[in-house]
Amino acid sequence: MGRKMKKELKRVLSFGAHPDDIEIGCGGTEALLAQKGYEITHVILTSGEAGSDRIPPWEMSAIREKEAIKAAKVIGACGVEFMKYPDGLTGFTREMKVDMIRIIRRLKPHILFVHERNESSLGHRVASELVLEALQAGSGPWFQEAGGEPWSPEIVLGYEVWHPLGRYELSVDISATLETKLKALTCHRSQTAGVRYDEAVRGLARWRGVMSLSGGDAEVFEVIKASQNAINCFKF
Amino acid sequence: MGRKMKKELKRVLSFGAHPDDIEIGCGGTEALLAQKGYEITHVILTSGEAGSDRIPPWEMSAIREKEAIKAAKVIGACGVEFMKYPDGLTGFTREMKVDMIRIIRRLKPHILFVHERNESSLGHRVASELVLEALQAGSGPWFQEAGGEPWSPEIVLGYEVWHPLGRYELSVDISATLETKLKALTCHRSQTAGVRYDEAVRGLARWRGVMSLSGGDAEVFEVIKASQNAINCFKF
Amino acid sequence: MGRKMKKELKRVLSFGAHPDDIEIGCGGTEALLAQKGYEITHVILTSGEAGSDRIPPWEMSAIREKEAIKAAKVIGACGVEFMKYPDGLTGFTREMKVDMIRIIRRLKPHILFVHERNESSLGHRVASELVLEALQAGSGPWFQEAGGEPWSPEIVLGYEVWHPLGRYELSVDISATLETKLKALTCHRSQTAGVRYDEAVRGLARWRGVMSLSGGDAEVFEVIKASQNAINCFKF
Amino acid sequence: MGRKMKKELKRVLSFGAHPDDIEIGCGGTEALLAQKGYEITHVILTSGEAGSDRIPPWEMSAIREKEAIKAAKVIGACGVEFMKYPDGLTGFTREMKVDMIRIIRRLKPHILFVHERNESSLGHRVASELVLEALQAGSGPWFQEAGGEPWSPEIVLGYEVWHPLGRYELSVDISATLETKLKALTCHRSQTAGVRYDEAVRGLARWRGVMSLSGGDAEVFEVIKASQNAINCFKF
Amino acid sequence: MGRKMKKELKRVLSFGAHPDDIEIGCGGTEALLAQKGYEITHVILTSGEAGSDRIPPWEMSAIREKEAIKAAKVIGACGVEFMKYPDGLTGFTREMKVDMIRIIRRLKPHILFVHERNESSLGHRVASELVLEALQAGSGPWFQEAGGEPWSPEIVLGYEVWHPLGRYELSVDISATLETKLKALTCHRSQTAGVRYDEAVRGLARWRGVMSLSGGDAEVFEVIKASQNAINCFKF
Amino acid sequence: MGRKMKKELKRVLSFGAHPDDIEIGCGGTEALLAQKGYEITHVILTSGEAGSDRIPPWEMSAIREKEAIKAAKVIGACGVEFMKYPDGLTGFTREMKVDMIRIIRRLKPHILFVHERNESSLGHRVASELVLEALQAGSGPWFQEAGGEPWSPEIVLGYEVWHPLGRYELSVDISATLETKLKALTCHRSQTAGVRYDEAVRGLARWRGVMSLSGGDAEVFEVIKASQNAINCFKF
Repeated sequence: MGRKMKKELKRVLSFGAHPDDIEIGCGGTEALLAQKGYEITHVILTSGEAGSDRIPPWEMSAIREKEAIKAAKVIGACGVEFMKYPDGLTGFTREMKVDMIRIIRRLKPHILFVHERNESSLGHRVASELVLEALQAGSGPWFQEAGGEPWSPEIVLGYEVWHPLGRYELSVDISATLETKLKALTCHRSQTAGVRYDEAVRGLARWRGVMSLSGGDAEVFEVIKASQNAINCFKF
Repeated sequence: MGRKMKKELKRVLSFGAHPDDIEIGCGGTEALLAQKGYEITHVILTSGEAGSDRIPPWEMSAIREKEAIKAAKVIGACGVEFMKYPDGLTGFTREMKVDMIRIIRRLKPHILFVHERNESSLGHRVASELVLEALQAGSGPWFQEAGGEPWSPEIVLGYEVWHPLGRYELSVDISATLETKLKALTCHRSQTAGVRYDEAVRGLARWRGVMSLSGGDAEVFEVIKASQNAINCFKF
Repeated sequence: MGRKMKKELKRVLSFGAHPDDIEIGCGGTEALLAQKGYEITHVILTSGEAGSDRIPPWEMSAIREKEAIKAAKVIGACGVEFMKYPDGLTGFTREMKVDMIRIIRRLKPHILFVHERNESSLGHRVASELVLEALQAGSGPWFQEAGGEPWSPEIVLGYEVWHPLGRYELSVDISATLETKLKALTCHRSQTAGVRYDEAVRGLARWRGVMSLSGGDAEVFEVIKASQNAINCFKF
Repeated sequence: MGRKMKKELKRVLSFGAHPDDIEIGCGGTEALLAQKGYEITHVILTSGEAGSDRIPPWEMSAIREKEAIKAAKVIGACGVEFMKYPDGLTGFTREMKVDMIRIIRRLKPHILFVHERNESSLGHRVASELVLEALQAGSGPWFQEAGGEPWSPEIVLGYEVWHPLGRYELSVDISATLETKLKALTCHRSQTAGVRYDEAVRGLARWRGVMSLSGGDAEVFEVIKASQNAINCFKF
Repeated sequence: MGRKMKKELKRVLSFGAHPDDIEIGCGGTEALLAQKGYEITHVILTSGEAGSDRIPPWEMSAIREKEAIKAAKVIGACGVEFMKYPDGLTGFTREMKVDMIRIIRRLKPHILFVHERNESSLGHRVASELVLEALQAGSGPWFQEAGGEPWSPEIVLGYEVWHPLGRYELSVDISATLETKLKALTCHRSQTAGVRYDEAVRGLARWRGVMSLSGGDAEVFEVIKASQNAINCFKF
Repeated sequence: MGRKMKKELKRVLSFGAHPDDIEIGCGGTEALLAQKGYEITHVILTSGEAGSDRIPPWEMSAIREKEAIKAAKVIGACGVEFMKYPDGLTGFTREMKVDMIRIIRRLKPHILFVHERNESSLGHRVASELVLEALQAGSGPWFQEAGGEPWSPEIVLGYEVWHPLGRYELSVDISATLETKLKALTCHRSQTAGVRYDEAVRGLARWRGVMSLSGGDAEVFEVIKASQNAINCFKF
């Protein structure tokens, strides 16, 4: 990769409520982007310390952060940041909103992934609302305290985890990276031991692939925002 | 099965917009009910003559009706009725509504399956509205022209086909009949040759099973109406 | 009632935002269940101390707790627990969610009643969301800090108080217990003195009964979740 | 009533899908308006010939039209028009839309009542959509074939029949005319013999009255459109 | 204006999340009401201190409060109250709800303006929910701690700011006060310097005016609640 | 433009319910695409013969077709096709759906514009549903009678006309073509004489431009479907 390529590198920022959500929701698409040289960062809101009824929270969070780092490497992400908010989010504060604005303005992502807006799990829905609210607030001449310049990603996509998207606007063929996605997912051993998310995710990818008529395996997304630049034909 | 058992036999009535919808949506649950001795009837609104871009409609409908009969046998259903409405429903008429009232009052089902209410496919959504409208109209002292007595099933369930249910109220473990369901589905060769519905359905069943924490394979349903009799604890 | 019957006793757990909500929403159905030997527990989130513009909060909560205990006895409930959250809920915290998981896992209810999901009153809607969120979180291998084993009721029903259910899935004929329900309701004298909830509730029961074609008086419910066990025909 | 009063007379136009819907939904409010000298016209879309499972349609429609005329007199309406569309509406045609535009432009109502928009009964929902679509189309310089001048009522209100309004904007105290409303309703003997709509409606009026804190009996309405003239404070 | 007129003076209370929202949403209508002698009070929830990415919050809030006072004078409002809640609301507390009840019961408004319910901006949506929740709670014999008597405005209207109303019930012709509205809006120099809200608002008023067929400029509103008194024809 | 450019030419297909809807909804964006060499076709479902209360339908349709052809030329479109369905659509038939499939498969568009899905005008909403239903049905191996091969556009966008989009996903800066858009719009003299759509549209474009923070004039769109190819970063 020469200098020109470097300059063209695009940045991806993915937010997840728990350490394994990003892999479940958009791991296959991220792996494809990583192969094309995109710089991918994961921001994980809670360290998932409530993710067991056996292991106490303080041990669990350490275990799950390690799993998240491992999984991110498998996907090809460059970094993982942990916000360490308490697992089991029931809402968000103004401070958390400012945190998110700060991160978005610092990392200046071109592509942003986040939980889709209608998730049945409250923790996921809160994550979605928090990030989307920060996106709006961070895009204009507001919130001096968050520092940085106003920023808007070129495309914002919502991914599905516990709740299937009723309508989706974009389907991505992940046949080429499904195994990478599943390998990343199985890094989250503390979770997949109890619930076979890996099998579930393989099943859903197949269903999505067939029903979108692509024939392969697929991840589907809600298009939350797209700039003219993001869409080929509208680059005037 | 003695006389008493006979008397207790319960009746199931399933409506599908196309010849393969019932198997896709509730074939596994039906197979379980068939094993318990329920009498199952399929009513298929259109004969799916638009289900190909190669074969002309008049041939297609004959092919698909045969497939539907074969598949119903695999499931263990007792009968299939074809309404022969034109495939590609965009609405329904008063006459179709009276047809449905007549069928419901004649067959007096205890369990009724139909497409769920938010299906993305218009033909499926029309089927759902038509049957649910007939259910309401057929349950009271109305529509003399349809004949018969007012009738209400004990439970009415909506199944998913092209569009995943965002929320569902009932999940049925179909691990024991998944293979029967898939066998029935592959009777619809004219369809599965072009689009691998069988693989899609296997994938979705796995996803539903894992995410409902049952661990097996599952079909999920929207509970549209339930009588006190249908629910154990409310039989006073 | 012999030993076998005892063993079969089923447990009911009802949540209400205020001391009189449960009686208004599902008092008639509870009375029927009590007659069949179900063990019923009421959990009341706030003690309704804002329920007057004359009496100061600290007196009001004591009055209303006594009223709630009296009313529960009339219904035939076994116990009432007061969470003493501040009346006028505008949201809920993670701690409240853990409280609810703990109660559900401790009491292991087979039937769970809670405010329906679309209530127009914010305090009621918050109660509904809180309990349903705890139900989901308490049903899997999560939240060690709440203690106990994962638990899921066989049926979860939403009842109506201030806001009528637009759609309901289950109607229960309470003709036999309407007077018991009203007697329980009038125990909440601090409330019915100002607003004639008793007359309102009698009127709604009649409307629901007639419009559901049962002919008697009725309470109607949103079916939020039902297990295969809860529904007669799906006990395989 | 002198000349000045005459000039001030306002016109009310109410649409109902069946002969008894208007009395059920807004009979109490209409009776109040009649007492104030408003000229009230009822337009009944179908003659309700499907309203029995005993009496054949052709007899039923004649019976019900007579009942509707009687009931309108009790309320104090000036006229009833029957569109004689087939009972059991499943949609509407362009011709029906033009019919409605013609009626609205001819009668030039100041107040218009129609089924609320979310009715669970399809026939009622179709009536609502048909009339509201005609209202929009009839308000501008369009549809020459309907004749007349563009017209918009000062206020358009949706009333409830089978399905309770989840949210309502206007509650009218009908304590003074409840008995008139019920007397009008019982004119529809062919209906109230089978289903006690009168008792249902009395119950709902009480519930609405208490819950809207008026203390009396009430009818509630969806405000669908209001002009500046209709609202006191906005007459500039 | 003599004594009788004084007595008839009506009170308007408008709530805004930020210092410029009221002018944007209902400034033209308020100016018309002011001309008719209505007493108008503005209650501004946050002082908009996050409204810049250059100026620190503590300076910003002082600047914007001054702008709000100036703008209110242009409109003809009598007073402005600042709640000084932190800008960037992500929810509201019980205390804030009691604050709002207290204000409503103290100022006893006949007309109340607030952000419409579906605003896309979270801060605006929170403001809407907070005020509407306080309206409901303040209208009955509840919340002794807020003091005062139960109060309900005659009409409650939702105005649009960032998000256009999909459906509106009331359109007010503001041709006569559009320039006043824009003059008031340009008092918010700290905001209009960066984003040309004035041009946006002029554009929207024109669109609303033409599309409502009034031909002039218009502000449109969601009718959230209307009493019988508010609507001419229902003053019985 | 040499041969290579020709080969790259992309095709745009826009559907409108009436002769002026396309110009109002996406005329500015189309003009930009025309400048880049896209081949644009307009398909107009009804010839708008109900668009006057003075001129009889048979004259009106001829007038409006001429206006539509003129306007399309101003925009830079290559062709206009008239379906001549009766103006005032209240639903669509199976035949109309097959018509639409045939057109889509014949013209093989890369970009497709259609009325957005929540339009308040029924005729527009019907147009939207009809085209979207045909898109789904035309994309798979179905509907032999429509001829042609399955086809899916790379991007499907919903435009706003009478009803503002509550949420939009894509905003296009049309500052460079606003005057062209308005010039095209004023070709529809039979319409703009009565209602100043041109001023309305200019106003909305300004509001959309400012509120999307682009600063210029804008058209906004609902992204209904996007393929991987349509979005820059997902061309793997």
